[in-house]
Amino acid sequence: GDGLAQRKQLASSMTFKQRGEAAQNLVARRLFNIMENKQSNLAVSVDLTKSADIIKMVDQVGPHVCVVKTHVDIIEDFTADFVSKLQKLAEKHNFLIFEDRKYADIGNTVCHQYGGGIYKVADWAHITNAHTVPGPGVVQEMSSSGNLATGEYTKETLKIARDHSDFVIGFICQSRICEDPEFICMTPGVKLEGGGDSLGQQYTTPRDAVFSRRTDLVIVGRGITGVTNPEAVANEYRLAAFASYQERISQ
Amino acid sequence: GDGLAQRKQLASSMTFKQRGEAAQNLVARRLFNIMENKQSNLAVSVDLTKSADIIKMVDQVGPHVCVVKTHVDIIEDFTADFVSKLQKLAEKHNFLIFEDRKYADIGNTVCHQYGGGIYKVADWAHITNAHTVPGPGVVQEMSSSGNLATGEYTKETLKIARDHSDFVIGFICQSRICEDPEFICMTPGVKLEGGGDSLGQQYTTPRDAVFSRRTDLVIVGRGITGVTNPEAVANEYRLAAFASYQERISQ
Repeated sequence: GDGLAQRKQLASSMTFKQRGEAAQNLVARRLFNIMENKQSNLAVSVDLTKSADIIKMVDQVGPHVCVVKTHVDIIEDFTADFVSKLQKLAEKHNFLIFEDRKYADIGNTVCHQYGGGIYKVADWAHITNAHTVPGPGVVQEMSSSGNLATGEYTKETLKIARDHSDFVIGFICQSRICEDPEFICMTPGVKLEGGGDSLGQQYTTPRDAVFSRRTDLVIVGRGITGVTNPEAVANEYRLAAFASYQERISQ
Repeated sequence: GDGLAQRKQLASSMTFKQRGEAAQNLVARRLFNIMENKQSNLAVSVDLTKSADIIKMVDQVGPHVCVVKTHVDIIEDFTADFVSKLQKLAEKHNFLIFEDRKYADIGNTVCHQYGGGIYKVADWAHITNAHTVPGPGVVQEMSSSGNLATGEYTKETLKIARDHSDFVIGFICQSRICEDPEFICMTPGVKLEGGGDSLGQQYTTPRDAVFSRRTDLVIVGRGITGVTNPEAVANEYRLAAFASYQERISQ
């Protein structure tokens, strides 16, 4: 009946296009738009330690990803020129840059870490993130100095996100933690074959994340950057993750 | 009777000298030794953003502190020369260097963040720290690449610390979380007058921390670095914190 049509739709059954139209946050809108247009809910985590290697890798996988995730504090030869090259590739291939800094300090310190120092993350990262362990001060302060953040778990995270939805676009999570259409659930530690490493990292497959656990975007690191043909493998991941999304929304 | 003498002594009623003798970890022994000899359980958090300002401040407050805490990622003009100058001051004034990085990622990433990048923290920091949110992998990995860590809360922290006591010297906490003599409880956010700031930071007094909540070491930032006479004020903090320790152990 008409009652059903009135029911608020669940994020996990909506298309990325619909969610981009529902989102108020401009970076979230842009990301949903890229995901729809490139048919990609794949982020690549490029954890290499030399600038030239990162730039080369990003240029190879760029056509297949919606987000490139960095850890600039592991780069041995970081300079402003690296940032400039990365930004040019973001424009060329149409992806967003996510600096995975996991800010975890009090607001005043995070303000300086995010906006200042050698890295000046606020100047170039479309997305960064914070642990919510220190409380909402971190997000309050970041929101006043720069772009936007994805929060990272704890039970208060969702409240903090909703209170700061002008600044928060989503969460790092292993399964969907909310059905608000505007928040993007991103799952790290993804490999086509699953499994684990010797340092406690557990891998999940794209289908486990996007279909079974209903998250939106998979973050793949060594599964792509550790192979000899990263461009072809990135495309495989893109196809697997996007098919899992299509399977989910057509249920 | 004899039964009482057999009872294991509580850390909070022991002297720093006794605890230094009880500790197996060499950095913990060294820190307890400095605390006893300098009559200082004061750490200063030097959150300035220019190398020269930090070096000048550390040289002023150095005589009164057992630990200098840094956030190198907020320094605008960080170079290896800054590290070299800081190390010379650590030798001159006999304090330990604590890089307050709050590592919070998976083991493989923390390994690179701690040992590599521009900062190479493992080469020069006597102490650093990690959030225990990502699980024990962080501590396992750091212990294989460098010096030692203080964990930061969550209910599993104590277990992780005891399982890795060769590498963990203590905790960042607002009140004593265990009576193991070898672990040092460090309390940040301390000001002589208490109070708060506009970004959610709450301050506690030295006596509240060391006497009432029975922690060992107070970490003071803007209360010392934000005044016109930091050397004299650092001495006031040192006297207040050490008197609170003496009051506690003489109970």
